Amino acid sequence: MQALVDRIRNEGRNLGRNILKVDGFINHQLDPDLTMQMGQAFAEGFAAAGITGVTKIITAEVSGIAPALATGVALGVPVVYARKKRPITMPDGTYEAEAPSPTKGGIIRLIVSPEYLLPTDRVLLIDDFLASGLTIKALASLVAKCGATLCGIGCVIEKAFQQGRAELADLDVPIVTLAVIESMDGEAIQVRDG
Amino acid sequence: MQALVDRIRNEGRNLGRNILKVDGFINHQLDPDLTMQMGQAFAEGFAAAGITGVTKIITAEVSGIAPALATGVALGVPVVYARKKRPITMPDGTYEAEAPSPTKGGIIRLIVSPEYLLPTDRVLLIDDFLASGLTIKALASLVAKCGATLCGIGCVIEKAFQQGRAELADLDVPIVTLAVIESMDGEAIQVRDG
Repeated sequence: MQALVDRIRNEGRNLGRNILKVDGFINHQLDPDLTMQMGQAFAEGFAAAGITGVTKIITAEVSGIAPALATGVALGVPVVYARKKRPITMPDGTYEAEAPSPTKGGIIRLIVSPEYLLPTDRVLLIDDFLASGLTIKALASLVAKCGATLCGIGCVIEKAFQQGRAELADLDVPIVTLAVIESMDGEAIQVRDG
Repeated sequence: MQALVDRIRNEGRNLGRNILKVDGFINHQLDPDLTMQMGQAFAEGFAAAGITGVTKIITAEVSGIAPALATGVALGVPVVYARKKRPITMPDGTYEAEAPSPTKGGIIRLIVSPEYLLPTDRVLLIDDFLASGLTIKALASLVAKCGATLCGIGCVIEKAFQQGRAELADLDVPIVTLAVIESMDGEAIQVRDG
């Protein structure tokens, strides 16, 4: 997605230790037009990968919500966002998984209620980053626990120099990413279209 | 907003102690079409209140993000979401405020970077609920700390039997709400158009 690549080139900042700052359009501020284009790009990428009959999108709070909603708009299907803390509105019988947080440290819990993820659901998983792949693996395990079918994975930005894609290989579903960071060695950010 | 009122009547659940469960379309699962309609309804409500020249929207993670993004789409302006935990991509010099969490207990911190909220900004504040008004007051204080101008407040659901609207009176800006819960006594949910 060229508009995203351009934005990363112009505004992304390499903070070192493989941390990419994109707070201006993903992690703290959102550009609505760019975000809705991401949803369209995911829809096109999944269609090109031959994925059909999707009934639901899953993501994790917080930064996955915007691109997931945009994809939900593009595909006309509901979006479920896994919670990190259990609100009192959630019933017993929820499913949980854990993953390390790359940008905040510690372990995050991800919680999904089977009220909204059904065994009949065909699910796309959307998140902001594909880096270690461990958050996405945790989300995929929640889809499996609910008995739903994972059909594809979409991430806004892939850090190709980390192990995410290999980590997710055994899920055996298409992975669509919109911008790929090839390298963050030194000051530069080497980024290409996904 | 009649579609929202209908949805609350059909799916909202009164869990007692003034807790309204709307996890199926606001707090855990999103209906993209309904969400985008909320953004349009906010845009119309603010226009009717005479608010012009808006340059930014602010909300709080997590559940405010979707209606805020939809409003950003409707108005064509960026959306800043206050973080509850400081990611390592945030620089020093951020502004913080605190508010009690009604659905998770404890005190939440809200953090905004002045990189994205400028003294020249004319800001709309969007959130999912207007109940005690304390989260919104905390967000409004962040807008003030950044030197920006708060122009209006929009909440998806107002609990009219709580003190939110009175709590926010001294901010002296229009408050637009899309559905108003008049009462949650007993089992019933008395809800009307905002």
